[in-house]
Amino acid sequence: MAQMALRCTRCEERHIADMVTVACRNCGAPLDVDYERGYRAAEWAGLKILLPKAASRADVSLGEGNTPCVRLPAVGDLLGLRRLYGKLEYLNPTGSFKDRGTAVMIAVAREHGVTEVVEDSSGNAGASVSAYAARAGIKAHIFAPASAPPAKLRQIRAYGAEVHSIEGPREATTAAAVAYYTERQLVYASHVMSPYFMEGTKTFAYEVVHRFRTALPDHLVFPVGNGSLFIGAWKGFRELRDAGYIARAPRLHCVQSRAVMPLVAAYNDEKPPTQATAGTVAGGIAVAAPARKEQILNVLRSTDGAAVTVEESDILRWQAMLSRKEGVYGEPTSAAAFAGLERLVGQGTIGPDDTVLAPITGFGLKDIPPE
Amino acid sequence: MAQMALRCTRCEERHIADMVTVACRNCGAPLDVDYERGYRAAEWAGLKILLPKAASRADVSLGEGNTPCVRLPAVGDLLGLRRLYGKLEYLNPTGSFKDRGTAVMIAVAREHGVTEVVEDSSGNAGASVSAYAARAGIKAHIFAPASAPPAKLRQIRAYGAEVHSIEGPREATTAAAVAYYTERQLVYASHVMSPYFMEGTKTFAYEVVHRFRTALPDHLVFPVGNGSLFIGAWKGFRELRDAGYIARAPRLHCVQSRAVMPLVAAYNDEKPPTQATAGTVAGGIAVAAPARKEQILNVLRSTDGAAVTVEESDILRWQAMLSRKEGVYGEPTSAAAFAGLERLVGQGTIGPDDTVLAPITGFGLKDIPPE
Repeated sequence: MAQMALRCTRCEERHIADMVTVACRNCGAPLDVDYERGYRAAEWAGLKILLPKAASRADVSLGEGNTPCVRLPAVGDLLGLRRLYGKLEYLNPTGSFKDRGTAVMIAVAREHGVTEVVEDSSGNAGASVSAYAARAGIKAHIFAPASAPPAKLRQIRAYGAEVHSIEGPREATTAAAVAYYTERQLVYASHVMSPYFMEGTKTFAYEVVHRFRTALPDHLVFPVGNGSLFIGAWKGFRELRDAGYIARAPRLHCVQSRAVMPLVAAYNDEKPPTQATAGTVAGGIAVAAPARKEQILNVLRSTDGAAVTVEESDILRWQAMLSRKEGVYGEPTSAAAFAGLERLVGQGTIGPDDTVLAPITGFGLKDIPPE
Repeated sequence: MAQMALRCTRCEERHIADMVTVACRNCGAPLDVDYERGYRAAEWAGLKILLPKAASRADVSLGEGNTPCVRLPAVGDLLGLRRLYGKLEYLNPTGSFKDRGTAVMIAVAREHGVTEVVEDSSGNAGASVSAYAARAGIKAHIFAPASAPPAKLRQIRAYGAEVHSIEGPREATTAAAVAYYTERQLVYASHVMSPYFMEGTKTFAYEVVHRFRTALPDHLVFPVGNGSLFIGAWKGFRELRDAGYIARAPRLHCVQSRAVMPLVAAYNDEKPPTQATAGTVAGGIAVAAPARKEQILNVLRSTDGAAVTVEESDILRWQAMLSRKEGVYGEPTSAAAFAGLERLVGQGTIGPDDTVLAPITGFGLKDIPPE
């Protein structure tokens, strides 16, 4: 009597909604949650929402979501925008938007009696999974590159997760995590692959609709790496549009660093820089091969979004601007959205009278540069 | 046609509600805000509240307050408490409860046309004032001991404040700040002395009443240094009691480190340790001579509160417990409340069936110990 299934994002093959199916058994693509008729809706931001096993969420919740949405008048002036807003996603329980997704994913894991999970992340997702697993009494193994910033590893360890430090490139970390959970038959609580994770991040869209009602932003600008917030937000807007709450979804734009730009390259048919570059200060979007790339490109197409790259120096400049002009201290990844916004305004995609919103995805405290 | 005045907390002398009166001109004691009949109430957590110039708050607000209040079942089990709650005050915009007070204080400052403020703090208050001043377009001078933790100074600087680093003991920092604002005739935006600051922190009590309604906690346990949350919370509960929203206020308990225990010593008529000790890991409550000491003692008496000290090792033990068992990563100061709670349960002040709430005052990310 399953009322929820997992559906392949490519071939639409359906699977039982368990915790062990990582990708489509037919074609290997990532999965999404699919609700069946009669599934009971929960409530979020005063709106009906479909969430996996919403009842059990209460037990592991740390109060994620319902983050402040504030005007950014000074930064708006600098950009020539009259109505610019930031949604302070860093005021989630572990300091990033990831908690929205983790709360749902871990609630489902607990519902299934899971006692041990594996995740690979050197940053916000690792801290988030470590915290919610602790709260749910689940043991967490977090795989991270040996080169990860010590401050981030410290937060992951603070919640009690076992950190597995892996030498070599980022891909080696994922490979080690996959080998580990496969061999030990543990659950892969991946913020990228888990279909439940994206169900949590869609609450972002519900809150935006609740906050703005009929005067919905025209544009949302996201820093995009694996796209867990980008895809989740689109899911939310689409559901609200299909339910008749909103007439149409905002345009969702994607910003990447020029140092790591697989999505922009694919969407715009651009060439990435020839040399393998040194990486980006925006650690949250340093993803060379996003597993949900096709889904992200589909969101861009569906909402008539634009995809732009930004320079490292501009990311740091906007990070300083946000804290010094607005008192909003985001990590560099968050600031990338504003560097991208500057480009989108410059190229005329966004006009001075448009209403624009960007998430401030992570706390500046989490990503302190070395002295 | 002033509808708000400042009243001395000791001799009750009344003063005009400006930004330059730092203490009572008659007796030197700290001041509180006093509303006159006809002052227009605002709304907070669905309840009527009196706030200074509430209308102007919107401009500088970063969405402070309305923090999650979550059950702590695992830590409750350890303490033998069935109903234990934590209010996640670290999910305020700069990572601590201080933002509640700063938002109101800076809104009033802006209303008065203030363009430059001085504050002395090496920690959460410094970061908070720096952020809200930035948002309000006010220049902030933050005085901090040269020995302050680099991570905290980094956050203060991120918001653009000018940091004045002062050699010598903590008192030298305050003295330097006072000399600086006096000489230059600048406004002293002190989280300790400003009567407006406490008006902001009282919103904490309004949210507790909104959340628990008639099943109000029996006990609130605070780490107390200068008492800006402790006094503010009491103000809130008293207002709500006087307005008939609640029958009686909860008991408010005070926890200090045994290394710095002026309030506990005074309230219990105890002797502090003879040697001048090495200080405490709980930087937020390392206040040897709290300017509002008499007020704090009055709150303890009025609510039949208890005052206890805790050991350094217990503070660190509870900090780890909170993050590892509940996914709540507070700074050591926050954990002191739980070490104190353990003592209050042990001595029978708090019983297993009582409902207990503690604020998690600051984010663990803000106070990272050296490796």
